[in-house]
Amino acid sequence: MAASAVAREIVLVDCPDDVGLIHRITGVLGAHRLNIESNHEFVDTDARHFFFRAEVTPAVGAAVLPASGALAEELTRVLPSAARVRVTRAERRPIVVCATREPHCLGELLLLDTVGDLPGRIVAVISNHDTLRGLVERFGLPFHHLPHHDAVGSDLPRETHEMELARVIDSYAPEYVVLARYMRVLSEDFVGRYPDRIVNIHHSFLPAFAGASPYRQAFARGVKVIGATAHVVTAELDDGPIIAQDVIHVDHTFTPERMAQAGRDVEKLVLAKAVRLVLEERVFLHGRRTVVFE
Amino acid sequence: MAASAVAREIVLVDCPDDVGLIHRITGVLGAHRLNIESNHEFVDTDARHFFFRAEVTPAVGAAVLPASGALAEELTRVLPSAARVRVTRAERRPIVVCATREPHCLGELLLLDTVGDLPGRIVAVISNHDTLRGLVERFGLPFHHLPHHDAVGSDLPRETHEMELARVIDSYAPEYVVLARYMRVLSEDFVGRYPDRIVNIHHSFLPAFAGASPYRQAFARGVKVIGATAHVVTAELDDGPIIAQDVIHVDHTFTPERMAQAGRDVEKLVLAKAVRLVLEERVFLHGRRTVVFE
Amino acid sequence: MAASAVAREIVLVDCPDDVGLIHRITGVLGAHRLNIESNHEFVDTDARHFFFRAEVTPAVGAAVLPASGALAEELTRVLPSAARVRVTRAERRPIVVCATREPHCLGELLLLDTVGDLPGRIVAVISNHDTLRGLVERFGLPFHHLPHHDAVGSDLPRETHEMELARVIDSYAPEYVVLARYMRVLSEDFVGRYPDRIVNIHHSFLPAFAGASPYRQAFARGVKVIGATAHVVTAELDDGPIIAQDVIHVDHTFTPERMAQAGRDVEKLVLAKAVRLVLEERVFLHGRRTVVFE
Amino acid sequence: MAASAVAREIVLVDCPDDVGLIHRITGVLGAHRLNIESNHEFVDTDARHFFFRAEVTPAVGAAVLPASGALAEELTRVLPSAARVRVTRAERRPIVVCATREPHCLGELLLLDTVGDLPGRIVAVISNHDTLRGLVERFGLPFHHLPHHDAVGSDLPRETHEMELARVIDSYAPEYVVLARYMRVLSEDFVGRYPDRIVNIHHSFLPAFAGASPYRQAFARGVKVIGATAHVVTAELDDGPIIAQDVIHVDHTFTPERMAQAGRDVEKLVLAKAVRLVLEERVFLHGRRTVVFE
Repeated sequence: MAASAVAREIVLVDCPDDVGLIHRITGVLGAHRLNIESNHEFVDTDARHFFFRAEVTPAVGAAVLPASGALAEELTRVLPSAARVRVTRAERRPIVVCATREPHCLGELLLLDTVGDLPGRIVAVISNHDTLRGLVERFGLPFHHLPHHDAVGSDLPRETHEMELARVIDSYAPEYVVLARYMRVLSEDFVGRYPDRIVNIHHSFLPAFAGASPYRQAFARGVKVIGATAHVVTAELDDGPIIAQDVIHVDHTFTPERMAQAGRDVEKLVLAKAVRLVLEERVFLHGRRTVVFE
Repeated sequence: MAASAVAREIVLVDCPDDVGLIHRITGVLGAHRLNIESNHEFVDTDARHFFFRAEVTPAVGAAVLPASGALAEELTRVLPSAARVRVTRAERRPIVVCATREPHCLGELLLLDTVGDLPGRIVAVISNHDTLRGLVERFGLPFHHLPHHDAVGSDLPRETHEMELARVIDSYAPEYVVLARYMRVLSEDFVGRYPDRIVNIHHSFLPAFAGASPYRQAFARGVKVIGATAHVVTAELDDGPIIAQDVIHVDHTFTPERMAQAGRDVEKLVLAKAVRLVLEERVFLHGRRTVVFE
Repeated sequence: MAASAVAREIVLVDCPDDVGLIHRITGVLGAHRLNIESNHEFVDTDARHFFFRAEVTPAVGAAVLPASGALAEELTRVLPSAARVRVTRAERRPIVVCATREPHCLGELLLLDTVGDLPGRIVAVISNHDTLRGLVERFGLPFHHLPHHDAVGSDLPRETHEMELARVIDSYAPEYVVLARYMRVLSEDFVGRYPDRIVNIHHSFLPAFAGASPYRQAFARGVKVIGATAHVVTAELDDGPIIAQDVIHVDHTFTPERMAQAGRDVEKLVLAKAVRLVLEERVFLHGRRTVVFE
Repeated sequence: MAASAVAREIVLVDCPDDVGLIHRITGVLGAHRLNIESNHEFVDTDARHFFFRAEVTPAVGAAVLPASGALAEELTRVLPSAARVRVTRAERRPIVVCATREPHCLGELLLLDTVGDLPGRIVAVISNHDTLRGLVERFGLPFHHLPHHDAVGSDLPRETHEMELARVIDSYAPEYVVLARYMRVLSEDFVGRYPDRIVNIHHSFLPAFAGASPYRQAFARGVKVIGATAHVVTAELDDGPIIAQDVIHVDHTFTPERMAQAGRDVEKLVLAKAVRLVLEERVFLHGRRTVVFE
């Protein structure tokens, strides 16, 4: 997000904990004369698992950043065999946004992208409805309407619809797929195509409400806060690992409609936060949890 | 909470909505030459129900406040027959606090009372354990240890224990009973003795967790916020109408112990807020909801 | 903001306090068989000043809302002679937004308007630069570029520029003028044309910083929160009465650029809140303060 | 703060940035077979300065933690000559609290200490008034009344009073001195005795107010948030580097008294946060700023 013109790489490692891991990693980085501009490390001492993220730049005098692949290989050689290593150029990564009919989350992302406050760039928007075409095209972006039914209104088989969805997504080679109030359940197969690369947003309540019309239920229950949760979509779980959560205060004067509006306000903020975090590669998955290096 | 020495009464009305209710109420107040220093009104337009709270003082020249009972009667005469009317002197009302072993919520209330930031006064503390005696006696307050088992360790019948609890509570004639992490379930009968006059606090999560060790579950799920809910205890419901809620942010570095600490921090703040609100008679029950005139 | 199709009027009164004011107001409203769906009242007991806001609808059986002007006149007759009375139809009021080069506040308002979460409608955008034309025209709205210099680059006299600004604003007859990062100081004369009808946003810090490059100063000072203040623009004051304020948390990892981004995030939220409040006529001016009936 | 019985040391380093610093530090730690359970690093890339904090425990099989002094010496040998190195046992460190007459901040610290939610322990309280004796003695702690005037009411020379203050403080050998609303200005000489070891709290406003009666000014200005700032007390500056800040929302219904109460609420929370941070050695000074590794 920095305005710097200096090339920068992000180094991500997670592996079973061991003595001397940071020493080994920094040994490899130092051999390339790379400055570590920031690093975060976290050890889950129960699970004995190690997480590491660094942003590195060439030290003065060092000509260039090493190729990401080569650096990752060198790191892998000095780390435990189970280590996952990822080295990637810090840059504005492409995302595809999927939405259905609600414009608030999509609009927030479009706006942040337009004003330069998203550390990535939206390359396309896909929807199972045509409602949002106008909004998207205003921002000069391609909009793909992929209805989940055929020309005569019969529902497509999920598989057929998801294949088309994947085909369009893949044509843009995005880093992440962001579900900005995309109201279709995705199959395990589909999710498995984009492991740890799909981000979703949903409203959350204290207490939680199952079933339909959650804002009507929240109203009936008289809640005083309305929340939103952004999470990674995983195949195994209904609710994937949480990236970000926040709440907004409401009171008895809120009708169900205004509660829903408050929900939209907090959903768009929480989704924007989560998308910024994943675009900067600050989120590790850790079983049902995340490690988020803010 | 105001520093004013002027006598002040709080007028509370709720009834089915009708045209001219405020006009009728203010007509009665004006006939007594009472200044309305603040009022709140809310109409639930779906349920067609009216809520009203005012703080009144004698206008200059008017000798005294009318007796609360007389004023309530006059108001009742001009309002629909289903109206609930309450007129009460604004003053520091007595509360009894029940706790078990955890000191954080109780301590916060003791401290606020001591420093003058509670619009009421704690007159006694009751616990089913003896753990908190030292803390309470430091503040010069009576502490009643009412164990829920007999001298040889057998559990008392719930009815027996609750009768003793009620006996002690009633000996103080408190306005409210505050459950500051009191870990015994109360029977419908007991709750019915203090209708709408018991306030409770519990932790809350997004998503919610049932069962034991909620902080361990919250940790395992990787939540990013931890919440607390203060509510009115009602006989019909496990979860009574909510008075106040708030959350605190946590992250992956929080152990279950530190999550529990964060939970304590937010529980004590939310309970203190709720107790302040009920002590100032700012909370109406409205079915499963509350109307809170902050 | 309510989805209701029922006509609704907003009644606003402020005047020196007196006994029986609400009784008199509600007497007039009742004579027209108007339901008071919500009302707020506040008395500044030091200044002895009374503020009142109600939303009213025709009671069942009552044919229509009375004309706003007639109702205001009737109210004026029963109130102290210094009373200010305003009766206005609840509807989506027109606003003109002025901006300079920064898109974040303008964009937020455009987006809220588009998605139906603004209780008003933007009818035009005016800027002293041409930078934001693309953004505005994407939303299908008229954009007026009114440069503050002439064709050869000489600065226009302030008066000349402001006359042109006023001419364009007035051609849209807006209810409010919103300064969404409009970076020109407005003259007392100009402000006087739109008394209490101009809303502005600026960043705020703890502690405050005067002079240029505030985010660089905030960075140098190591602040942990960055705030924003939305206020009414008044002729007499640099800083008019505050409508809304909020803050966002930052830390040592924030560069001045990211602090400025955090500032943009909070500015747009606070301005949107303030604009929603004024559009619903929830803000009274009270000397250097506001009374905001949320 | 963890409940662990394992000995743990905190390693703190700051020095001019250089390539390979973490590698060198972790080399020394690894040679002692120390596990790095968590570490934070930050490089101020403008100032080219490096900050590092780690918590280390003996790896399985390693008999004991090395002596803090020996470890610090070894680290110093491999680091730039300007490096500041500190190695310290993680434990509940002693603090002395100074207060004047207001009990809210002191009370919060006493309560957190009592309930086990302070990662340190209060060993004594000193005040220039006798007001708070009762509160402190309730918690079984020594209270020292050091009046700033002599037996006949003449003001003591500041130097005389501060010498007495220092004598009492030093008799407890505290790690930190916490000013919990201590209303005397401290001399540069006094502050110099406890470099970077004095923490203070004060209220903060948007905008800021100089001079007396800040809450009255805040009221007159109609602010919507009231803040508090906890900072390190330094000799050179009125306002030392900020450790923590937060705000609380207020509105037009708040009298100056209730604004002051809101101020007390936020002051105690922010001071408690800052004291927890310094007690866990999470705060580095960095010129006028801090680096806070939460």
